[in-house]
Amino acid sequence: MSELAMRAEKLDAADELADKRGEFVLDDVAYLDGNSLGALAAVVPGRVEDVVRRQWGELRIRSWEESGWWTAPERIGDRIAPLVGAAPGQIVVGDSTSVNVFKALVGAVRMAGEGRDEILVDATTFPTDGYIAESAARMTGRTLRPVAPAQVPDALGDRTAAVLLNHVDYRTGRLHDLPALTAAVHEAGAYAVWDLCHSAGALPVGLDEHGVDLAVGCTYKYLNGGPGSPAYLYVRRGLQDRFDSPLPGWNSHAEPFGMRSGYEPAPGALRGRVGTPDILSMLALEAALEVWDGVRIEAVRAKSLALTDFFLQCVAAYVPEGRVECLTPVPHAERGSQIALRCDDAGEVMKRLVERGVVGDFRAPDVLRFGFTPLYVGFADVERAARVLAGTLA
Amino acid sequence: MSELAMRAEKLDAADELADKRGEFVLDDVAYLDGNSLGALAAVVPGRVEDVVRRQWGELRIRSWEESGWWTAPERIGDRIAPLVGAAPGQIVVGDSTSVNVFKALVGAVRMAGEGRDEILVDATTFPTDGYIAESAARMTGRTLRPVAPAQVPDALGDRTAAVLLNHVDYRTGRLHDLPALTAAVHEAGAYAVWDLCHSAGALPVGLDEHGVDLAVGCTYKYLNGGPGSPAYLYVRRGLQDRFDSPLPGWNSHAEPFGMRSGYEPAPGALRGRVGTPDILSMLALEAALEVWDGVRIEAVRAKSLALTDFFLQCVAAYVPEGRVECLTPVPHAERGSQIALRCDDAGEVMKRLVERGVVGDFRAPDVLRFGFTPLYVGFADVERAARVLAGTLA
Repeated sequence: MSELAMRAEKLDAADELADKRGEFVLDDVAYLDGNSLGALAAVVPGRVEDVVRRQWGELRIRSWEESGWWTAPERIGDRIAPLVGAAPGQIVVGDSTSVNVFKALVGAVRMAGEGRDEILVDATTFPTDGYIAESAARMTGRTLRPVAPAQVPDALGDRTAAVLLNHVDYRTGRLHDLPALTAAVHEAGAYAVWDLCHSAGALPVGLDEHGVDLAVGCTYKYLNGGPGSPAYLYVRRGLQDRFDSPLPGWNSHAEPFGMRSGYEPAPGALRGRVGTPDILSMLALEAALEVWDGVRIEAVRAKSLALTDFFLQCVAAYVPEGRVECLTPVPHAERGSQIALRCDDAGEVMKRLVERGVVGDFRAPDVLRFGFTPLYVGFADVERAARVLAGTLA
Repeated sequence: MSELAMRAEKLDAADELADKRGEFVLDDVAYLDGNSLGALAAVVPGRVEDVVRRQWGELRIRSWEESGWWTAPERIGDRIAPLVGAAPGQIVVGDSTSVNVFKALVGAVRMAGEGRDEILVDATTFPTDGYIAESAARMTGRTLRPVAPAQVPDALGDRTAAVLLNHVDYRTGRLHDLPALTAAVHEAGAYAVWDLCHSAGALPVGLDEHGVDLAVGCTYKYLNGGPGSPAYLYVRRGLQDRFDSPLPGWNSHAEPFGMRSGYEPAPGALRGRVGTPDILSMLALEAALEVWDGVRIEAVRAKSLALTDFFLQCVAAYVPEGRVECLTPVPHAERGSQIALRCDDAGEVMKRLVERGVVGDFRAPDVLRFGFTPLYVGFADVERAARVLAGTLA
């Protein structure tokens, strides 16, 4: 056994989250793609079966009340809240991340008022945020200006209505400084909208603590909600009365079953709802969130950094110099929970890795992404991944 | 056995769709609420279990390709297409009905161009369509004008950009004249957007035949897709190149995995996609649609009318005169697949009906709704429902 393999064994033995791995359905694959699709929690299949067979099949329409379907968006929102540092009553689950970016950004622009005519967006963002931001700008008569996150403070001004930023970059895994950037946005009198897709469930976010205005995120990465599970929208309590949704569906009405022709928005987080929630996906997510019982997000962060540190150490030891270039920042304060390696023929390399039981993913044109989900990835997986990568590149 | 009960027996014996009932999970309840939530098809639970345990649990990320997750929205759209009279390649499934109303209406207004500044909306619509239409009007700088469907021809003019109509009224069950209204809208040079929530799966729609421009619909009523299953968007082939979505998420990009910062819309129906599809709900819907194999929608319509005719006959025979007033038109050409009865204390009456095994629903302030899903409702259910209603009102 190599020195690093022995080190992995020791790290796994000392891992306070090690028991969590048993709560997931895993096999002999080193699954380092939880930053794309989280693994299946063992509690989920039975729950989904109950939702389908009993709640839908037997109770049918009665389940909207009796099985708590109607209130699922806010109930599950409150379950996610502590994981992103939010008090209850500020998050609703539903719709895709893209749709929630639209709600959040239009909502923020409307809060900023007519005098502010510019929206700033992370120029390195996952594309959908940029496309949707462009539409939000067009439909609210604002101008969209893509800016690298580091340049945001200089780009802010009296014209800035809202700023859409990613907490962790989907490609490089860079962690942006949410507290400082939010403070800068506020100093300019603008509204900060954060996309938490690649940070929620991997590290502390502190939405309330840092005064974030609005936030969105998906639930199928580090929250393990399942393929395409619904996203969520956070609207800070102090702004909820001013949140003016561009998608005021009947689920966001103050009296949804009043069937009134005039729209009157519900108070609170409910205002972020739109149409009928997709119950099967939503209740699978609710079950998946049970694995977080008793888990401190600080412990998750500590393990995440230990995993990525160890991966970098193993890559340095195993992979011949110059074959890969790490795009992820080395300082902990700038690192999310993934490592991105630039590599020639990255698409082909990832195919070979997958064939050898190491699953990460490929982002065009030349990036290998490895995601480290602290709830179920162990240090032995990490050592193996680096070793197989080295073998693949040899 | 009463004369009507004997008549029900004969009608059930002659019902060419009678065997379909066995493909659903039903019990001793007369379930007349399929116009709100369709019953569970027996094929669904096993399929969902496979999606959860094998596709997600074992294949994980590989399922986006290997299990056909990525192409599900258009594949399932093509499965719905023949039920609403559409050729393949014009429907995508995803998002809620409300979100699709927004896409369709903004898309229609943009096709109409700057010169047309008014949107007409069915004044009797299910509220969400009106709320979303108001937002679409506000965000495109148009004026929204609610008009009763019968008045639409008179209200049309050079200013009309688009008209949003319901094929069947959610409250009264009135069937509107889609061919004639669409022709009138076109004659005025405007675009017709139809909401098919209460007609798809209950009667022929003929989207292509009648030249409908855009349409939306839910899948959890007569299509039995499950609670909150994703809705769909139809964009007529000839208009697809001009469909300019207000929600241009990455799933609608010509090259979604190119991760380009510039948006370039995909050709065809794909342009109606937005974010990552909610796979569990979507594949449950796909399984539920299998019950339509070999079913002619004309046979469904014939049985639907026979069921509602028979219900009216039984109500007339059993319920003391003056206790209920039928809001649903008697002429077949104006009737969908539900019967709405106005009744004092309708909320209380429905509670008692449910206690006695007859499940319809209540719409404020005074309407009892009974939906007749031809695939699984029999004539004996109908006779029983009218009999129990009479007993409840006695």
